[in-house]
Amino acid sequence: MQHEPLPERFRRHALLPEEAQRLILECVRPLEIERVPLLEAWARRLAEPLVAPHPFPPFRRSGMDGYAIRAADVGAATAERPITLEVVESLPSGVEPTRAIGAGQAARIMTGGMVPEGADAVVMLEATKHVGKADEPHFVQISKPVLPGLNIADIGCEIQNGATLIPAGALVQAGESALLAACGYATVAVARRPRVGILSTGNELLEVGEPLAPAKIRNSNLPMLAAMIREAGAEPILLGQVPDDRDRAGALVTEGLSRCDLLLTTGGVSVGDYDVMVDVLAAPDIRLLFNKIAMRPGSPTTAALRKDQLIIALSGNPGACFVGYHLFVLPVIKRLQHVDNPYATPFQAYLGVGYPKVNAYRRYIRGRMNIVDGLVKVWPTGDDKSSLMTTIVGADCLIEIPPLKSGLEAGQLVTAWRLD
Amino acid sequence: MQHEPLPERFRRHALLPEEAQRLILECVRPLEIERVPLLEAWARRLAEPLVAPHPFPPFRRSGMDGYAIRAADVGAATAERPITLEVVESLPSGVEPTRAIGAGQAARIMTGGMVPEGADAVVMLEATKHVGKADEPHFVQISKPVLPGLNIADIGCEIQNGATLIPAGALVQAGESALLAACGYATVAVARRPRVGILSTGNELLEVGEPLAPAKIRNSNLPMLAAMIREAGAEPILLGQVPDDRDRAGALVTEGLSRCDLLLTTGGVSVGDYDVMVDVLAAPDIRLLFNKIAMRPGSPTTAALRKDQLIIALSGNPGACFVGYHLFVLPVIKRLQHVDNPYATPFQAYLGVGYPKVNAYRRYIRGRMNIVDGLVKVWPTGDDKSSLMTTIVGADCLIEIPPLKSGLEAGQLVTAWRLD
Repeated sequence: MQHEPLPERFRRHALLPEEAQRLILECVRPLEIERVPLLEAWARRLAEPLVAPHPFPPFRRSGMDGYAIRAADVGAATAERPITLEVVESLPSGVEPTRAIGAGQAARIMTGGMVPEGADAVVMLEATKHVGKADEPHFVQISKPVLPGLNIADIGCEIQNGATLIPAGALVQAGESALLAACGYATVAVARRPRVGILSTGNELLEVGEPLAPAKIRNSNLPMLAAMIREAGAEPILLGQVPDDRDRAGALVTEGLSRCDLLLTTGGVSVGDYDVMVDVLAAPDIRLLFNKIAMRPGSPTTAALRKDQLIIALSGNPGACFVGYHLFVLPVIKRLQHVDNPYATPFQAYLGVGYPKVNAYRRYIRGRMNIVDGLVKVWPTGDDKSSLMTTIVGADCLIEIPPLKSGLEAGQLVTAWRLD
Repeated sequence: MQHEPLPERFRRHALLPEEAQRLILECVRPLEIERVPLLEAWARRLAEPLVAPHPFPPFRRSGMDGYAIRAADVGAATAERPITLEVVESLPSGVEPTRAIGAGQAARIMTGGMVPEGADAVVMLEATKHVGKADEPHFVQISKPVLPGLNIADIGCEIQNGATLIPAGALVQAGESALLAACGYATVAVARRPRVGILSTGNELLEVGEPLAPAKIRNSNLPMLAAMIREAGAEPILLGQVPDDRDRAGALVTEGLSRCDLLLTTGGVSVGDYDVMVDVLAAPDIRLLFNKIAMRPGSPTTAALRKDQLIIALSGNPGACFVGYHLFVLPVIKRLQHVDNPYATPFQAYLGVGYPKVNAYRRYIRGRMNIVDGLVKVWPTGDDKSSLMTTIVGADCLIEIPPLKSGLEAGQLVTAWRLD
């Protein structure tokens, strides 16, 4: 008669989450670059910084609908003695001036129009009176002086030639798309989409389309991970289910690695599970990076290398799988896409409700932030049974609960991480 | 000699932004439903609420690795006089028990395993001693009493049968995907992707691939809008550039409407522009909803109906186009996808820097939020020339600056809206 002994492979050294993150990230190299049409670059990540190829605006641009004039010409203008200028041209946006503005001259100009040589100010339409037909004024009167530069956006005042506008690794969203277009990038250098394989383990797992059966649950981690991988701009590769046979499972891992940049598995890493991934990752050609992390949920989260290819074995528990993905997998997918600092930025927020549970390890709970009168509060999205998929819905942050002898009270500042 | 008169079509009645939003949204009906495989539902919106088709967990599930027992059997157990139970079965997760647990019996059970009939508690492995071989214990000793229910997740304790888990209109992300899978939804009812047409106007516009030319700039609104439309789960339909000819422009609008659920145009709505959209939207078969909004930027933003089809004519100014999209277009795209309340939720935040500019109208400036020690500050992403595409990059909120005789000081509370 004896206490249950732990087999040697289960005797594990627990790392801090940040140590585990560092060990993983050291193994990751950015993927190769591909060039895609601008409209296909959306939600991809820039593989090269965007450098302005010319100043913007590229010409002196009118900020108003009005008249381009020479400020010196109207220095003596008053309401009683307005100055009359000859209108020599009409310049809608997109039309290049055909002549310079000389002394006593003006050009009708629209918002966005190119200010002609010689002119150094634009007087808004409402501050002028015209002489002649409305559509075709021949003369315009100005009744007060203006400062040189009025309503003119100088060449390069928005973007200087050669300025770095967006760093490599940036996600191409609305603003990035606009800037890329303004700079003439009809094709964009983006990181190749990472291929992220997903292998599921667990005798209890049914396919989503299968009817319920006793002791069985449907595989919810697979679509959850696939959704997060897509969200991260990568391509999920569905590799199926690991059989409960070490050799066949090992062969499937080998096949998965041949098709993917990163291999994820779910389940089979806990002590006491039918722990096929523990066996597979004990193979001689596989180098274990770690197999225990001092955190909850997800302490048996494991990472390993086969040659230079990374395998991250996540817990099969949906809550732990979710947390493990955000802490360890998402940074890898971002680094593969040339993101220099792939970690979420922590912030301090007030805990909305007390967290009475005593915690021996750092705990990450799914939370939702709420801003009231300039204060940020974070609330757990449910109770913290890490198996509750329902608490993932609506979670927009992870709340860190430090190891504490007593719980936390409502209103205490805690650290949280925004979920992308 | 006279002040510039405004032609009648330019005499406009300015609505408040919220009035304009309401007028638009009244014209929008949710699109039809389509059923797609779960893995293709990512980033789509549910067209029907997700109702739990069965309780979850669907069986009494063990929350621990240990032994399923009858609590009554060990009521008298002490460290000195442990109770010995016969181990009648071993239950990994996914394996249905073959027999009920009788008096004096126990079953070895793994985390996630199905608790057999008769058992009403699971004692964790570490709190037991086994008798016999490690792999095949025949007897187990328990040395203290346990409460009934210990380490057992009851049927339905996470999700009750028939509970509404996710409302219609919800975006299918990670948590939603997991829940849909757990509930057996191999196909998901989602809203058809809205088709959103984009017509550009403006003589000054070059295609992104064209070399710069005097007075010209590249069309940055088109890829910006396309990116935001995709982000919203809709499909951008590129309709090209509106010619400066009212009949041809009208024909293009007609063709666009035949292909789209919503038609956007950019430019051509300001007084003083070569205002082709003003002309097109004056056609007898088109009903104007509004053509002026009391806001900056984007006051000439216009909306109209042709039969029951919505046309939103955005300003050509990139900043105004961006703001107009978020205030008026995105809610339409969300409503088309069955979102009940499609407006962003405002929040109060502290202004990070002063905003000295005097404002006759409500102004929306692009901003970025920053959380420091539980306080939310918002900062304009640049100066507020609304043409600055650079201020769109990195903007994660719109800051509302109310019409004020004096500016705002740093540290004042302002209203802001998160950008999705």
